[in-house]
Amino acid sequence: MSMRPYDVIKAKRDGTAIPDDALREFVAAFVRGEVADAEMAAFLMAVCFRGLSGAETAALTQAMVDSGETLDLSGVRGPTVDKHSTGGVGDKTSLVAVPLAASAGVRVAKLSGRSLGHTGGTLDKLEAIPGFRVDLEPQVLVAQVNRVGCAIAGQSPKLVPADGRLYALRDRTATVESVPLIASSVMSKKIAAGNAAIALDVKTGSGAFMKTAADARALARTMIGIGRAAGRRTAAILSSMEQPLGRTVGNALEVAEAIRTLRGEGPEDLRELSLVVASEMLVLGGVAADAAAARPRLEASLARGDAARTFAAMIEAQGGDPSVVDDPDRLPGTAVEQAVPAPSGGFVAGIDAEAVGYAAIALGAGRARAGDRIDPGAGIVLERKVGEAVRAGEPLVRLRGADGGRLDAARRQVLGAYRIGPAPSATAPLVLEVIA
Amino acid sequence: MSMRPYDVIKAKRDGTAIPDDALREFVAAFVRGEVADAEMAAFLMAVCFRGLSGAETAALTQAMVDSGETLDLSGVRGPTVDKHSTGGVGDKTSLVAVPLAASAGVRVAKLSGRSLGHTGGTLDKLEAIPGFRVDLEPQVLVAQVNRVGCAIAGQSPKLVPADGRLYALRDRTATVESVPLIASSVMSKKIAAGNAAIALDVKTGSGAFMKTAADARALARTMIGIGRAAGRRTAAILSSMEQPLGRTVGNALEVAEAIRTLRGEGPEDLRELSLVVASEMLVLGGVAADAAAARPRLEASLARGDAARTFAAMIEAQGGDPSVVDDPDRLPGTAVEQAVPAPSGGFVAGIDAEAVGYAAIALGAGRARAGDRIDPGAGIVLERKVGEAVRAGEPLVRLRGADGGRLDAARRQVLGAYRIGPAPSATAPLVLEVIA
Repeated sequence: MSMRPYDVIKAKRDGTAIPDDALREFVAAFVRGEVADAEMAAFLMAVCFRGLSGAETAALTQAMVDSGETLDLSGVRGPTVDKHSTGGVGDKTSLVAVPLAASAGVRVAKLSGRSLGHTGGTLDKLEAIPGFRVDLEPQVLVAQVNRVGCAIAGQSPKLVPADGRLYALRDRTATVESVPLIASSVMSKKIAAGNAAIALDVKTGSGAFMKTAADARALARTMIGIGRAAGRRTAAILSSMEQPLGRTVGNALEVAEAIRTLRGEGPEDLRELSLVVASEMLVLGGVAADAAAARPRLEASLARGDAARTFAAMIEAQGGDPSVVDDPDRLPGTAVEQAVPAPSGGFVAGIDAEAVGYAAIALGAGRARAGDRIDPGAGIVLERKVGEAVRAGEPLVRLRGADGGRLDAARRQVLGAYRIGPAPSATAPLVLEVIA
Repeated sequence: MSMRPYDVIKAKRDGTAIPDDALREFVAAFVRGEVADAEMAAFLMAVCFRGLSGAETAALTQAMVDSGETLDLSGVRGPTVDKHSTGGVGDKTSLVAVPLAASAGVRVAKLSGRSLGHTGGTLDKLEAIPGFRVDLEPQVLVAQVNRVGCAIAGQSPKLVPADGRLYALRDRTATVESVPLIASSVMSKKIAAGNAAIALDVKTGSGAFMKTAADARALARTMIGIGRAAGRRTAAILSSMEQPLGRTVGNALEVAEAIRTLRGEGPEDLRELSLVVASEMLVLGGVAADAAAARPRLEASLARGDAARTFAAMIEAQGGDPSVVDDPDRLPGTAVEQAVPAPSGGFVAGIDAEAVGYAAIALGAGRARAGDRIDPGAGIVLERKVGEAVRAGEPLVRLRGADGGRLDAARRQVLGAYRIGPAPSATAPLVLEVIA
């Protein structure tokens, strides 16, 4: 080893640059069990204070990628572009943007995760579709992408095993909140997944992990730096998560809303963000010269039904029932549905997205603990969003769940999440910035 | 537990005050094995960046004391006063100051350590005396202190077990260099050792762990704060370790020099520092009103031979040969002795104490690794100290060791430690400050 583990920790503690090979060997030795959890924990805490340089962040990420297998997408014909969101409440953008971009000419082999904390997971949403399978062998995935244009599958545990071990350690040593550590965790998985380009949707606001635009911008820039250091074309969209995205939170509800959006009947915010994200995917894939050129092609694809047909083809390829695209009512429902009336009249001044996310967990739509079972039909329909008028007694939201006990718990949380004021207030812009 | 381990780590990371009971429970849970090394390592690294408040430092120290047994000195008649040095090269002050202070009326039950890195250990020095035993049962120790006035023994592993575990963790996670962690480590052992008062000799300079006076002062103030929070009268002497103390480095050599000092024949710097330290011990013990009142009594004790007789009585009580006090030549010698001549004439401008300490390790006088055997007769006699004239070819030092190979290694290090200039230079003051 070029530097002893002690020297790597001390260099970070003292703010001295760590050579690439030393940092990569430190992570590799950790994965081999030769660097102890205690040594890594001390290093991670020093990183929380000192940060990592661009070169160190890239070296850490590459070491994480090198800890396991990588997906070989060389068999895909056409430009591969990945899409990732840092997580939000009601964020079903991938379900729209991935088939939309694929219908306009890029290839997307997307590996997704499950729900974590107050934010949902794309895999959980897709599994609300009867029969849908997320475990695809690599050669099956490549064949599907060539045939259909896109696939969304679960990540194999053989990819980036260092990430799971590092995350578990960070989770119990209060070292999660570090921009370079968050960025390297995300990007190591995107790089290992093999797409040539990566479009990032970085959320900011009360419902996002990054509460301020400055923090979200720093995370976006760090992720872009990692992607480019690894030879991937990378761009980021900064988008607002001050209130839930669209009008639904919960797995089957969100799939239905994504389908309506693909059919041109969805909420404006979800449609807009999906078009912005898909536009960047086309630009990154070299299929469009710029976003202005990409947009009309995507709008045409939506209007013609191409994007919806691509989604149906992906569902069918992955064992799901494609008829849900024509008839979203075939998606799972729940036993109980109940409206939550507004306690007073006025205008919705704010909806705490994080609180709505926890209300959805209470209903059974997410996981309070890893391994919890999910109720695919459970969730929340937002009847009013920020800026909209409501009379006292009119429904603010509708709750769906398995039993009244779950609805009672969620009702209190949802009522706490809504702020109602006397006059209409301006909503924050949905897309803050595109960093390309 | 009042706070989860995660919350204690996070609070320190974020600079939030940790309540006493939470910090004490965190350390207690670590000792019970319920807080993992990784969690403690993250906490310790956060302490390196954030420090600890006075209250947190006191709570940490008390938790360490509470991790094991404490020495009960209630059976000692008279005021008990401990003495501790933060470690230096050629620092045999305890061998002089402890019997000197005891001969003037305070009681000293001192627990000491072994050599560590480039600095010597009092136990190793005393064990150069034929027959000397450092493992004393508590009741034997108390009886000896009542009879003789003082005892210097090894620390039982039952005292402050948390310190050994924490130190081993800090040593491999680059979290040693933290003033409150260093201070709590020292003071937990002093508090557990039971003396009612504590005189600290805090070294500063190239041969000390604290390289600057500002760092040494911060450490001294932190240790005083801990001592007082635990109800112990505590004072600190800041003393210079820019060159080795006295004219000898090595166990038997240092015992002989301490004996000469107790007999009024030792080097001026060792005599002066011993008088300053012993004066503070008398003041802390309530035996003298102030240092000015203590000093003439200590000088009289030296002149009458009382201090030397107390040292001989302590040696005899602990199984050693007391005739070494009358005839230091009875102490162990070595096979080979060799002078190192000055390569050029002039005046000694500086002696790098740390380099001299490592030369002594090369000779066999200290330990490169824990558990290494020590050669009691090995060491270095400094024939010239800072400010003294030397002609080319005259001896700078004499080296003593078991064989020529050891002497060759030490000779190069010693020559590198000496700086010789064209004109006499001023020496730094020996005692920088007394913080009482």
